Amino acid sequence: MSDQVNPYRLASRQWKKEGTRISVKGVEIGGDELFIIAGPCAVESEEQLDTIAAFVSSHGAQFLRGGAYKPRTSPYSFQGLQKEGLRLLQQASLKYGLGVITEVMDLSLLDEVYPYTDIIQVGSRNMKNYHFLKELGKVNKPVLLKRGMDATMEEWLLAAEYLLVGGNEQVILCERGIRTFDDSTRNTMDIASISLAKELSHLPVLADPSQGTGSSDLIKPLSMAAIVANADGLMIEVHNNPAEALSDGPQSVNFAQFKDMIPGINATAKIMGKKSPLTPESKKEKVLNY
Amino acid sequence: MSDQVNPYRLASRQWKKEGTRISVKGVEIGGDELFIIAGPCAVESEEQLDTIAAFVSSHGAQFLRGGAYKPRTSPYSFQGLQKEGLRLLQQASLKYGLGVITEVMDLSLLDEVYPYTDIIQVGSRNMKNYHFLKELGKVNKPVLLKRGMDATMEEWLLAAEYLLVGGNEQVILCERGIRTFDDSTRNTMDIASISLAKELSHLPVLADPSQGTGSSDLIKPLSMAAIVANADGLMIEVHNNPAEALSDGPQSVNFAQFKDMIPGINATAKIMGKKSPLTPESKKEKVLNY
Amino acid sequence: MSDQVNPYRLASRQWKKEGTRISVKGVEIGGDELFIIAGPCAVESEEQLDTIAAFVSSHGAQFLRGGAYKPRTSPYSFQGLQKEGLRLLQQASLKYGLGVITEVMDLSLLDEVYPYTDIIQVGSRNMKNYHFLKELGKVNKPVLLKRGMDATMEEWLLAAEYLLVGGNEQVILCERGIRTFDDSTRNTMDIASISLAKELSHLPVLADPSQGTGSSDLIKPLSMAAIVANADGLMIEVHNNPAEALSDGPQSVNFAQFKDMIPGINATAKIMGKKSPLTPESKKEKVLNY
Amino acid sequence: MSDQVNPYRLASRQWKKEGTRISVKGVEIGGDELFIIAGPCAVESEEQLDTIAAFVSSHGAQFLRGGAYKPRTSPYSFQGLQKEGLRLLQQASLKYGLGVITEVMDLSLLDEVYPYTDIIQVGSRNMKNYHFLKELGKVNKPVLLKRGMDATMEEWLLAAEYLLVGGNEQVILCERGIRTFDDSTRNTMDIASISLAKELSHLPVLADPSQGTGSSDLIKPLSMAAIVANADGLMIEVHNNPAEALSDGPQSVNFAQFKDMIPGINATAKIMGKKSPLTPESKKEKVLNY
Repeated sequence: MSDQVNPYRLASRQWKKEGTRISVKGVEIGGDELFIIAGPCAVESEEQLDTIAAFVSSHGAQFLRGGAYKPRTSPYSFQGLQKEGLRLLQQASLKYGLGVITEVMDLSLLDEVYPYTDIIQVGSRNMKNYHFLKELGKVNKPVLLKRGMDATMEEWLLAAEYLLVGGNEQVILCERGIRTFDDSTRNTMDIASISLAKELSHLPVLADPSQGTGSSDLIKPLSMAAIVANADGLMIEVHNNPAEALSDGPQSVNFAQFKDMIPGINATAKIMGKKSPLTPESKKEKVLNY
Repeated sequence: MSDQVNPYRLASRQWKKEGTRISVKGVEIGGDELFIIAGPCAVESEEQLDTIAAFVSSHGAQFLRGGAYKPRTSPYSFQGLQKEGLRLLQQASLKYGLGVITEVMDLSLLDEVYPYTDIIQVGSRNMKNYHFLKELGKVNKPVLLKRGMDATMEEWLLAAEYLLVGGNEQVILCERGIRTFDDSTRNTMDIASISLAKELSHLPVLADPSQGTGSSDLIKPLSMAAIVANADGLMIEVHNNPAEALSDGPQSVNFAQFKDMIPGINATAKIMGKKSPLTPESKKEKVLNY
Repeated sequence: MSDQVNPYRLASRQWKKEGTRISVKGVEIGGDELFIIAGPCAVESEEQLDTIAAFVSSHGAQFLRGGAYKPRTSPYSFQGLQKEGLRLLQQASLKYGLGVITEVMDLSLLDEVYPYTDIIQVGSRNMKNYHFLKELGKVNKPVLLKRGMDATMEEWLLAAEYLLVGGNEQVILCERGIRTFDDSTRNTMDIASISLAKELSHLPVLADPSQGTGSSDLIKPLSMAAIVANADGLMIEVHNNPAEALSDGPQSVNFAQFKDMIPGINATAKIMGKKSPLTPESKKEKVLNY
Repeated sequence: MSDQVNPYRLASRQWKKEGTRISVKGVEIGGDELFIIAGPCAVESEEQLDTIAAFVSSHGAQFLRGGAYKPRTSPYSFQGLQKEGLRLLQQASLKYGLGVITEVMDLSLLDEVYPYTDIIQVGSRNMKNYHFLKELGKVNKPVLLKRGMDATMEEWLLAAEYLLVGGNEQVILCERGIRTFDDSTRNTMDIASISLAKELSHLPVLADPSQGTGSSDLIKPLSMAAIVANADGLMIEVHNNPAEALSDGPQSVNFAQFKDMIPGINATAKIMGKKSPLTPESKKEKVLNY
């Protein structure tokens, strides 16, 4: 047995010609309809999450995102509400009929987070944590595998291979920007990688333009770019008051910005022959307070 | 006087709120219609160029591209037809009513190339050649300024500033991919930089998905992505026989691929409120030989 | 509380002017003598490890390295001997009077690996696993913190801060190359970061030229470069038969190459006012079988 | 003829086993003695240059550097004294018996700069200006070819190939740092590339730790690192008053810092079996005014 890197097999289009579709909470990911995850970077309080969940569900998002445990570069930054955050996610999701996606920062937290989330998010920093991936290969829940900020396409698909070879076929790829020399955006969103991942692999691919650009101004155009590049959905950071957000405020859209994005998202989806769940006008009668 | 980098002034949106529109050969760049440049990486022969020019003009491209002097990494690679290439560009452009854009590789070649081109292309490798930029600031022809493959947004706009401060206000920016660790595409196309350049500057911005991806498969999705990210136009490498191209064959689309791109380009343009000059069906009666 | 990155405090030279010295197994890291870790990339067999441990101890290395659990890009590559590997490391270290360093790939493996290792290695892929770092902050063993291949200096020192703020003051930094566009070496060894880390922080800094270059030819010059850049020691991959190694053979030196490095290492150490534990001639009478 | 990149031939060690030695102004580059270039980033005034030239010659530097035409990112930054700068370089070099090296920013400036410089410097931004390189292949003066900040090893050696194939065999390579994600230093100095260039090519290789790090504190350790990595010499920015320098002050050493570097440079040269021309104590009786 040699050291050479074996290419991915189970993750490839050669292995499986048809695109994988993953059904979760009544939504099909990788199918005819865009999959839209929206919510705050971090769960901050009951009021914050309720306000945001009400808003995003009212406009058609299918899943609620929100970090309960947050990976932060500095130990002095806000680390998340942890267990209380998980409880709040569950409460908001039940109230508004949303699915939940949240990050499992470490294998040791899997048991704790598991009952509260419908999709397990593997963060960019964990994409190369192969022991963790092996364990997630045994789990019977979909895994959203963010691309490492220093990961090549091959490394990303080999990380997916770890999950697939372990038996978990519910793998969703998510491009969230890579690290380059350019400092004008937080990361450099690699839109071509979305098209290429769809070509090389049968797995659904989402885009996270919030992490990918770090700038609320750029989320609308990059969301549209991702869709025409063949993304199956989007993960968007939304906050009722980005200026006061405890983390990543600059890359969160506010409610007006989110609504402003919807026509462009829906129009690009239509070009790609996909339906969009989003509606510019609130589905509910009662006027939301924003 | 200190060493600090002064930010761009004349290139900024603060300086000039309205987008710059540049009229050349009856086409307005930066206006209501997409600007489409198409043609081979390099001019190779009269027959090659005539065939390609006939095709691209027939489908609505306004400008013909083609390298006469080619910057090549190896001295042993094809270096371009040089003067003969310029003559062939002129001949094809007159025959098919196309404008011409070709690269001036060095200031010493400016006088020679000048009469043959409607837009002067500054290649990625020359974006930081400040002496060259100063001289082009005195020229009365539009300049297409490709982003350096190692250039930050600020460096790119400061390069434009060299042209503007010299008196040449006809500057067109062109994103063509940056160099990163990822080797799955030739360059990493920085789609966010298109949106950001349009936000920070009043100058028109084009996208070159051929250089940006290096892969003919990815030119269609990345063209569409560039348009929804607010690009004013595209520069696309087209070849009648990419497999036999003397340079950059893998990143050239063939005629069928070019035609296949047009509906998506036109649909995305429409979303952005722009007209497209491209037509999927040939404008001419006579059947072109392809 | 805002999102801004707080700079490191406890890791800084401002906080602690004198360099931190860490004593483990009778060796002082960060002191007057170079600290030399040597051994195979992965533990492969009892015979392999015994041969290598005999050789490196005979030439003065103080610590034996060897992966029992290996992070591998592909699930189809050799993953390490795991528990058996740990046992073999212990056996060889006792036989040859060497300390042991091995990687803990995941927090869930900490209890298993803990009794077998004198220094806990945090791999490059785990440098940003903050939950893991928090737990290691509570441990009473030295931690070698490899720089992430995409980590800035600030991120690296903030990762150290996670350990320090948790109460573990025995932190050793290790530069092992960063990921850049250049493909002529496996990683780009950032020698300046060694000098800079020693300037900004009081923590000991090691260099890993094997990972840093990926090429056995370059380990000698880069080891010497690291020492004159102020490194406190080296971590070197040594194999009795690199051509047959189960992982990373190309970046392992063989015994002749290791011996050939010693005079240069010793001479550069002397320039820096440091002692070196290495001896070109074997300390033992019995001729080793190589 | 295809598009494939031909590897370098004339630049390779396969072509020429022995290291190339270049004699200029009585100094042999690539031989038994280190080649030391020192001087300001830019020529600023007669007094400035005279003071610096006196100092560096007194300590053994063989060549004086100084930009007359400066490539600056912003058009509003100091652009160099131009012709007057060239005259001052000549004057100082004659007075102090130093050779001169200065950058030719553009082919159109070659005739003007040619009589004033003993070595023609091709800056990082021009390494891929193949038309320029072709013309320099016809020139009968040594060319110092800086590595492009985005150039791979192969591209760097192919740029040298352009000079060699044109007939100019007097090519000196110079590593000056590459552009990466890390912002803690101005560039990332690729020390391994020095060893590797010496292995792959017969050409002399210098190091420019001033550009390579951007920080005067790091020039001493990186100079020493470059020497043990097999560099044939150094190019160091020295200024009599860095705080007042018109360009790149932060990366210039002052006179005390330069003197402080000399013992380490000499000691590392000795390890590598090379002589050093530098002397910590001034060679001249008269006390220099610093």
